[in-house]
This record gives sequence, structure tokens and C-alpha cells, in this order.
Amino acid sequence: MSRIEKFIEYMEVNEIDIAFITLPNSIYYFTGFNSNPHERFFSLLISLDKNPVLILPELDLDGATSKSSIQNFLSYKDDEDPMEIVKGFVKRKKKCGLEKSHLTMSRFEGISSAINAMTYVDIDEAIQKMKVIKSQDEVEKIKKAIHISDAALLEALKKVKPGVSEYEIAAEIQYQRLKLGADGGGLMVVSGEKSALPHGRTGDRKLKEGDFLLIDGGVLKDGYVSDITRTFGVGEVTNQQKEMYETVLAANLAAIGAVEPGVSFSTLDMIARDIITRDGYGEYFTHRLGHGMGMNNHEYPSIHGLNTDAAQVGMVFTIEPGIYVPDVGGVRIEDDVLVKVDGVEVLSQFSKELMIL
Amino acid sequence: MSRIEKFIEYMEVNEIDIAFITLPNSIYYFTGFNSNPHERFFSLLISLDKNPVLILPELDLDGATSKSSIQNFLSYKDDEDPMEIVKGFVKRKKKCGLEKSHLTMSRFEGISSAINAMTYVDIDEAIQKMKVIKSQDEVEKIKKAIHISDAALLEALKKVKPGVSEYEIAAEIQYQRLKLGADGGGLMVVSGEKSALPHGRTGDRKLKEGDFLLIDGGVLKDGYVSDITRTFGVGEVTNQQKEMYETVLAANLAAIGAVEPGVSFSTLDMIARDIITRDGYGEYFTHRLGHGMGMNNHEYPSIHGLNTDAAQVGMVFTIEPGIYVPDVGGVRIEDDVLVKVDGVEVLSQFSKELMIL
Repeated sequence: MSRIEKFIEYMEVNEIDIAFITLPNSIYYFTGFNSNPHERFFSLLISLDKNPVLILPELDLDGATSKSSIQNFLSYKDDEDPMEIVKGFVKRKKKCGLEKSHLTMSRFEGISSAINAMTYVDIDEAIQKMKVIKSQDEVEKIKKAIHISDAALLEALKKVKPGVSEYEIAAEIQYQRLKLGADGGGLMVVSGEKSALPHGRTGDRKLKEGDFLLIDGGVLKDGYVSDITRTFGVGEVTNQQKEMYETVLAANLAAIGAVEPGVSFSTLDMIARDIITRDGYGEYFTHRLGHGMGMNNHEYPSIHGLNTDAAQVGMVFTIEPGIYVPDVGGVRIEDDVLVKVDGVEVLSQFSKELMIL
Repeated sequence: MSRIEKFIEYMEVNEIDIAFITLPNSIYYFTGFNSNPHERFFSLLISLDKNPVLILPELDLDGATSKSSIQNFLSYKDDEDPMEIVKGFVKRKKKCGLEKSHLTMSRFEGISSAINAMTYVDIDEAIQKMKVIKSQDEVEKIKKAIHISDAALLEALKKVKPGVSEYEIAAEIQYQRLKLGADGGGLMVVSGEKSALPHGRTGDRKLKEGDFLLIDGGVLKDGYVSDITRTFGVGEVTNQQKEMYETVLAANLAAIGAVEPGVSFSTLDMIARDIITRDGYGEYFTHRLGHGMGMNNHEYPSIHGLNTDAAQVGMVFTIEPGIYVPDVGGVRIEDDVLVKVDGVEVLSQFSKELMIL
């Protein structure tokens, strides 16, 4: 069954006559056409009594025709009002589904005056639930993003030594990523005492002997992301730093080892947290263990101590324990993992031995 | 008068009791605090009967206290509901102003059930009208972004020669930008026949003798952007290519020369278009002449033949005529200009002579 057919089943059960899919990622998910015309109106309309149609700006029509799986397109020029197209398409007007976490008030007012439905319900959760289970094709795309990320990091590390700034390292990594065809992606390079800030920013600090160097980043490729963190030592590091690293690595490995269908997210978080607490760093592991990823670098599920939902085959999420000791520094080791029938596949391949640069 | 005081005047005239400023750029504009906590609730509340207050996630509180011009903060933890804070703050509940082009349906439903106002009006246009006139400080920030962009391009050009791919050139420019402290920014590098596509994408095409190389990009620095295009020749170019270049340059210079307070945007567009038409390329200038910029790279005003609004002192916008001949290539020359009392200041400094690489 196609994704659209599956969604129509959901609509039938919930008696939704018409749904507007407006998040570009969702349109990509349902149609295979990856585009973001920003302020211009772009929506997949799914109706119970008609074939689905993609409403889009005329300049995207060629791309959509060649790249998408659906058959019906209605395009508009910049001086035309897409709501007129909506009016012409929508006949039944009882219950309308919208992606309420994405749709703006302005757009909603346009849609509601065009179709005048009786109720507007939120379809965000239903779509999120579909997206959370990745297909083989989606896993391949994530692997492609991971491959670029890993290769770029390995190449960039050759330039890392004391005296080089965080900015320069970030620039080198981005350079290598783009050369490998990344479509985009984020990056955080923090060093020394700054590595103790889980949400620090890359700056002009220069590396010094004895620093931790923490590099967290993700590559976007063909609409899917990677999200990986590695922490390195610069020159000689202290025994305490080595101990911190080994503790985080043990937590990372133990949590990954426990991933299988049916395990609860709270259990995974607890397994990692127990190891860090046992080693005396419990108070310094100040965030959740991980999060889902795919088209975005933060998707469902959230992996923390209060989420008792169970892992399912096809979910992809991060495992990223960390220890952040003020004035000393921080260590985080983040992998991307896939839940499989027989356990887990670690998608991120970059070495986790403590490397001294 | 401060920006908030000016906005309160607007609220009084329009009898708006309470306004939620939720676009991160707008919060930066009104408070000096530049942050984007993404899915977390972040809003400046401006009321007629109270001092303004910034509602924000606790992890941003330190930054906001040190960086913003306002005095009142209400922070919430991840397990608290920010709408409870809203409920406690809002007393008068008649007319509520919202940034409807930004606020999502989900957020709106949260706010409306918390405050239960009688009407909700759009304050987007009022804020946009304020933002369109740049202060000296804002112009300095734009100049800083432009300076990084120009310096990075100049440095990156040293690596450009036949055989180098568009990806490699983009990577080199981004590398140089990041080394110079850019916070981010976009980039399009297209060459040869691909330069004839105004919305083309950087790819793995390698430069060849006789190509046009078109580089369009902007740097983000401290919340403000640059937006500049230059077109280069690779090896020898034909007389037709030189003629195309000279025509676009003449159009660029003539339109810039006409910028002064009071001139209409349609006149500027016409001046550039007439020159291109006179030289026989009218049908190949397929887009508007330019657009406003500042915190975003597309702001009001839109500079095209139907916009009869007049330029005002303090506006910053692009002037970017272009000629795109299918199978031959495209030329665009884009500058960023500031309207001044006595005419125009061209903020972008990069040379406009045809450079052969």
C-alpha cells in the first residue's frame, strides 16, 4: 500500500473529507517531490472522493512532473491566487485535516475562507506516526548523509592541531562536506572549557594542548540527515579526561547494545545514565539520551527517562550520552541507530576510540 | 523613541490591548536579543497597561538578561506550560495582535485558549513597515555581512580555473566565509549553460573555457544578511558574452544612479529594463529588478514594474538585473544599496569589471 493510500485509510476512519499537506517534508514523503517554495503556497490535497492533487507555483511544475509519484498537478502564476484553485477542487466541506504545527494563521485564514469547512482537525500526529518507521529507501538516504559526514570529518581532522581555531575547523569540515555533495547541514565545534556547554557555539577560540574538542553535526542529503558527535583529545589529556571519555563510551555502547524491538526508551536512557552515575558523573549528564531523526534532526521519539514507549522495527534515533564538567570540559559520543527485527544496526561508522590529535 | 514605544503608539491607535511578537527576528528587532529556540515557545508580550515581558525557555534566560534591552523576563522549564505564564500576564482581553504570517495554528490555539480575546488582528504589516527603514546600527551590521561575503569571494576566486567543479567553488567560498566568522548564509554557483537558469542549483559540473560563472550568495552575520551576485568569464569568452555583460552592467549602473528618496520602484525597474531591451535582450530579463533585505534576504520592498511605492531614506534593497540566454548562459550583477538623503550608497564593494578567471 502506498503512503497516500495508508493516509486515506486514516482519513476514512476519522471521517476527514479533505486534508491539506503543507509541510514540504511531508509533501516529499507522500509524493517523492522535494521542494520548498517558501512563502509561495504549496500543498498536497488529499480528498476522499477524488485523486490527490499537488498545488504548486508554476516554476516548480516541471520538477514536480518528473520527480513525483502523483498524477495531478494544479499550478499557479505569481499573479494568480492559489486559493481560487483550492475553491475549485474542494467539494465536500465537513471535516478538514491540517498540519497545525506548520500551517500559519495567514494560510489558515486563506484556506478556511476558500473552503468554509465545519471543523479543522490536526493531522500532525498521524503523519508523524507514519514517518517514524523508516523504509529501506529512507535508511539508504540516511546512510548516504552519514557517509558524507564521516568522510568529511576524517579528512578535516588532518588539519586539526593546537593553535587552530574552532571556526577554521568548522570551515574545513563544511568544505569537505560540500565537496562530497552535501546539500547542507549544521555543525558545532567547541573546545576546552567551552566543550562543557551542551549548546555552545563555534567561535574563535584556538585549540590548546589538553583540550577536549567536541564536534557535533549533521549533513543534509536528498532530504535526509545524519547527526553524529565525536570528542577528541588535543595533545596530552589528563587521566580524569580519559576516565570521562571511557565512561561516556561505556554508556553509549551499553545503551546501543540494549536496542531491540520492544525495549522502552526510558530503559535505554536508564541504562546509559546508570553507568555514568556509577562512575560518579551522574549530575553532569544533563540532557536526554537521544532523539529520533530522518527528514529532520529532531523527530519523534524523544529518548528520556519518562518516555515508556517501545522501540519498533524501522525507527532511527540517536544515542548520545555526555558528561559536562564545568571548567574541565565535555565529552559526548553520538551515534545513529536503526531498530531491526533481530536487534540494532549502528548506522554511524566513525571510530569511537579516543583519538589524540 | 524606542522601537517598542513606537509600536505601542501603533497599538493605541488601533486599540490593540495585547500583542504577541513571536517571530525570532522581530524579537531581536525589538529587544536586541537574537535567539531561536525553534519548537519552544518564545514571545515578547507587549501590553497597553504593563511593561513588556519576554517569555522564553529557561536555558535562554542568561543570554536574554545580558543581551536584551528589556527588563522583564518570565522563563519556563521544559516540563512547564508557557501558556500558564501567558494566562497570568494577560488581564485585558479584547483585541489581540499576532504575527499571523509566522504564528502556527497550534500556537494560536494555545494562545487563544489561554487569553480568550474577542478578536485577533494581524500585526505583520505594521512590524514590516518599521523594519523597512534601517537604523545606522542595522546598516553597519549589513556592511559587516557584505564585507565577509566580498572578502571570502575574492579569496576563493584564486582557486577557480577550468576543471574545478561548482561544488568545489562553493565549498571554498563557504570555507573562507566561516574562517571570517560568518554565522551562515546561502550560495549558488552555476556555470556554463546552467548559468542561464535564474534558480539553478550548485552541482558537480566542471568549469570549461568559455563558460560564464555566476555566483549568487549571502552571508548571515549577527542577524543581518548580504546578498550579492557577480558573474565571471572562464578563459576566453565570446563577443556576444562580453556584450551581454556590458548590457547588464549598464542596466545595473543606471538603476543604481537613479536611486534617491521619492523615486518609485517601478521607475527603477523600468530604467534597467529599457537598457536591456534597447540592446535586444528584453525577453531574457525574466525577473524583477530587486528586493528589500536586512534580517532576511527577501523583505519589502519588491522592486518590479507594478510597484509604484517610493524609495525612502533608510531602505536597503538589491539591484540585480540579469540576462539569461538558453544554451549560451546567464549574467547577473547584484548590488546592495542604501537610500540616503542625498541619493544612494552602494554597500557592496566587489569590482564589477568583467573578470576573466
